[in-house]
Amino acid sequence: MSAVESLDMPAPSTTPADAAALETPFGRALAKLMRAHDQFGVWDKYDDAKVLDGFVLTKEKRKQLPVDGIPTPETRWRMEVYYAAICMAIEGRTGTQVAPVMQLHREGFGRVVLVAGRLVAVSRTIRDAHRFGFPSLAGLAEAGEALVAEGVDMVTRYPELAASG
Amino acid sequence: MSAVESLDMPAPSTTPADAAALETPFGRALAKLMRAHDQFGVWDKYDDAKVLDGFVLTKEKRKQLPVDGIPTPETRWRMEVYYAAICMAIEGRTGTQVAPVMQLHREGFGRVVLVAGRLVAVSRTIRDAHRFGFPSLAGLAEAGEALVAEGVDMVTRYPELAASG
Repeated sequence: MSAVESLDMPAPSTTPADAAALETPFGRALAKLMRAHDQFGVWDKYDDAKVLDGFVLTKEKRKQLPVDGIPTPETRWRMEVYYAAICMAIEGRTGTQVAPVMQLHREGFGRVVLVAGRLVAVSRTIRDAHRFGFPSLAGLAEAGEALVAEGVDMVTRYPELAASG
Repeated sequence: MSAVESLDMPAPSTTPADAAALETPFGRALAKLMRAHDQFGVWDKYDDAKVLDGFVLTKEKRKQLPVDGIPTPETRWRMEVYYAAICMAIEGRTGTQVAPVMQLHREGFGRVVLVAGRLVAVSRTIRDAHRFGFPSLAGLAEAGEALVAEGVDMVTRYPELAASG
């Protein structure tokens, strides 16, 4: 099997739960944003599971990574797309614009806030960014949807602040 | 005159307005934070005007900088201290904790939010970060105090949100 053929294989971890994950508003937003970065259509022939495969970090893979480390530009970019997709899904459900502001120090710690107007819809501390990833696509969607739900709740509770400039 | 002697001279741009600037809550917070980074006491013999001299970018100096550019680590660090000092001054006047989250892209654009609980106390778009600086100490304090006033106003208007986790 050549390297090119291996790329055409479905992502190995796709289960029914993973397939359902791809149909969540967050899962769809994430796949859409990833494809938006694919300027040359290289991913056109891949399904969403394959496109999101980089977000999956199995236990085995995680164990191989050092405890301390510096996030690669690719990991950093993947985090940006992850939080942008959460903003997109919150926006889809509330009609309110949400934008991420992520401060990530070189050593992999920092903070991200998802901001709607003058409201912090979601706030998280970031640690171990170099090991950013989820055990499965289902785990990825679960984590993303939890932040979406939190953001939607905040925007719904403070609509005026969320809409203010 | 040796290089060492020149360091001992007062900052050349100090006017009565500059001296007053150093006495604002923001000016004092900024000098305090800058000195907190001076682990070896090198600045002990310098006055605050000298310690804050790096924030002053005169028109002449600004003209010498290219229109496009990449902010140096020192400029980036100075911006972080600037926004941290604004947070400190807001905190001093309201008793509410405020923290900066700054996302600065390599090319010098980005966004900074000063966050109190779930409230965005201050939000600014960043452009031309490589030319970060103020025409004088008075100009520096004026800009900083304006952001402090904005933040204090927001925290005072939304105390519950500002205090929420």
